[in-house]
Amino acid sequence: MRHRFPPDHYANGILTGDRLTLSRAITLVESTRADDQQLAQQVLEQVLPKTGKSIRIGITGVPGVGKSTFIEAFGTYLTGLGHQLAVLAVDPTSQRSGGSLLGDKTRMETLSMNLNAYIRPSPAGDSLGGVGHRTRETMLLCEAAGFDVILIETVGVGQSETVVHGMVDFFLLLMLAGAGDELQGMKRGIMELADALLITKADGDNRAAASRARVEYQNALHLFPPTGSGWFPPVLTGSALTGEGVADLWQILQQHQQLTMQNGHRLQRRQEQQLTWFRSLLRQRLEGQFYNQPGMRERLTILEAQVRAGTLLPGPAVQTLLATSPATDRSQFE
Amino acid sequence: MRHRFPPDHYANGILTGDRLTLSRAITLVESTRADDQQLAQQVLEQVLPKTGKSIRIGITGVPGVGKSTFIEAFGTYLTGLGHQLAVLAVDPTSQRSGGSLLGDKTRMETLSMNLNAYIRPSPAGDSLGGVGHRTRETMLLCEAAGFDVILIETVGVGQSETVVHGMVDFFLLLMLAGAGDELQGMKRGIMELADALLITKADGDNRAAASRARVEYQNALHLFPPTGSGWFPPVLTGSALTGEGVADLWQILQQHQQLTMQNGHRLQRRQEQQLTWFRSLLRQRLEGQFYNQPGMRERLTILEAQVRAGTLLPGPAVQTLLATSPATDRSQFE
Repeated sequence: MRHRFPPDHYANGILTGDRLTLSRAITLVESTRADDQQLAQQVLEQVLPKTGKSIRIGITGVPGVGKSTFIEAFGTYLTGLGHQLAVLAVDPTSQRSGGSLLGDKTRMETLSMNLNAYIRPSPAGDSLGGVGHRTRETMLLCEAAGFDVILIETVGVGQSETVVHGMVDFFLLLMLAGAGDELQGMKRGIMELADALLITKADGDNRAAASRARVEYQNALHLFPPTGSGWFPPVLTGSALTGEGVADLWQILQQHQQLTMQNGHRLQRRQEQQLTWFRSLLRQRLEGQFYNQPGMRERLTILEAQVRAGTLLPGPAVQTLLATSPATDRSQFE
Repeated sequence: MRHRFPPDHYANGILTGDRLTLSRAITLVESTRADDQQLAQQVLEQVLPKTGKSIRIGITGVPGVGKSTFIEAFGTYLTGLGHQLAVLAVDPTSQRSGGSLLGDKTRMETLSMNLNAYIRPSPAGDSLGGVGHRTRETMLLCEAAGFDVILIETVGVGQSETVVHGMVDFFLLLMLAGAGDELQGMKRGIMELADALLITKADGDNRAAASRARVEYQNALHLFPPTGSGWFPPVLTGSALTGEGVADLWQILQQHQQLTMQNGHRLQRRQEQQLTWFRSLLRQRLEGQFYNQPGMRERLTILEAQVRAGTLLPGPAVQTLLATSPATDRSQFE
């Protein structure tokens, strides 16, 4: 068994920016052991007053869009300006492989050797909600350790981008030029989550197409309902090769930051995110208790098959399930 | 107290298309009394084999877009073709007024006097989930009563359109020409839910603007990720005054129906909707039991204020809440 330290040890190490201690604390956060979790919560509680001071950025895009290379270019630029950058990855597809997004650190060679950058894949989790929960806590630890820019990378498929959108100040969608096969696999609804679009690989032969795409998307976004914050999502072109878009993106992030801090929307968004996090965690625990009862999965499978086939209505199905569940207080059933 | 009949009475009346019995059965479905609910479930069970044969259409748009007048024109056209039309309304804002959408039936004067149309506002509900649940059951009763086209109307604000999207085969978004103030109040993400857009009030001075808007939106939709069904959402113009778009819309609905029935997506969508309905109902009941414990709301209010302020982390907040909850089996707490 790995050695554990008292909470103070982790907290002090984190607050003085010690990487090794930070990594160990994140490992506690990611642990499913009850004693590790308790320790992690104590550490988090101690560093909590020192959190919240970073710019939290979510980056998503389908595989092949060039997320890693763009993050390398962007991250190198930011550390060059003196920023401390943490890159976290939420990857629901990597539950078995242990992190296909960033597990292979050679994908961000330059950045992974940069002393002002910290790269950490999110752990295998048994639920997407769990992954989101742990990534949020990891983000707080990184903030306490002095990182002032947090990038959270995710694949733009499935549900992970919604989870990441729910924990950042700014959500960036990377896209390829052209509106054909590139869109396959992208989830509908994701475009309207974005605070900015960036057309990647805007270099060489692809440059003209990227510029056209930029104009098209910009026109399209004008037809969307506005964001609540008064922010109008811009469209950029970028290239990890030439560095195009990197400085522009940083400028746009600062404009967004300034606007939403002035009009109160950043605070409001963060407060709503905290509440949503709390409620989804509560729901997860409640449902976990219910679904993990002995024999529940089997009963559920049978009922769900009938519901799906349309031979059993959801109302009676729920009633049947609750009636056969010992942990459920039936007197409160409507 | 109102008189109740045995389940057979309601089922037989519904299956022979008796409007009065249908209305009474819907009232049972909408009732919050436990005995009414039990009776409603028995009626639903009896008619269940006769459900599912309609085209289920969701219609949404912000207030002022002209939903009622367009539904009047469209509904009158459909009944003219020999269809039996039911119009239901989900309106989460009308919990107190008892249905501002359709409560005032004079808003659909012609249709409300049409013998082949049946107009019914959805009831006041204490939760949006509850409203959605009852509207789904009402839809099934209408199908059993022989209505072969079901229109479910909702306001395109808040969460109701997501709920309605989850119970229909085809989701139509009504919009006004111009991309300015009209978009205010529309929820981001709604455009990507739509199976078709219809620009309303395409008549008189507004006709040219509507045509331009049609082209703009059509171009914009090309930049969206495709729907899973292989359907490409078209953009139409329509006018309740001139009848423009009414026949086109019906043709598009039939094309969509044909495509999705052939490629299996209609069945798949409906099966997924059934499952989602079941799971959300189960969640609602589980959370209802938990939140309705004595003193829970008060404890929750205090904790949520701390979570929102960022002084308490969601993890410990959930732990505190579960630890003080008598109905919760703590041994299963991770």
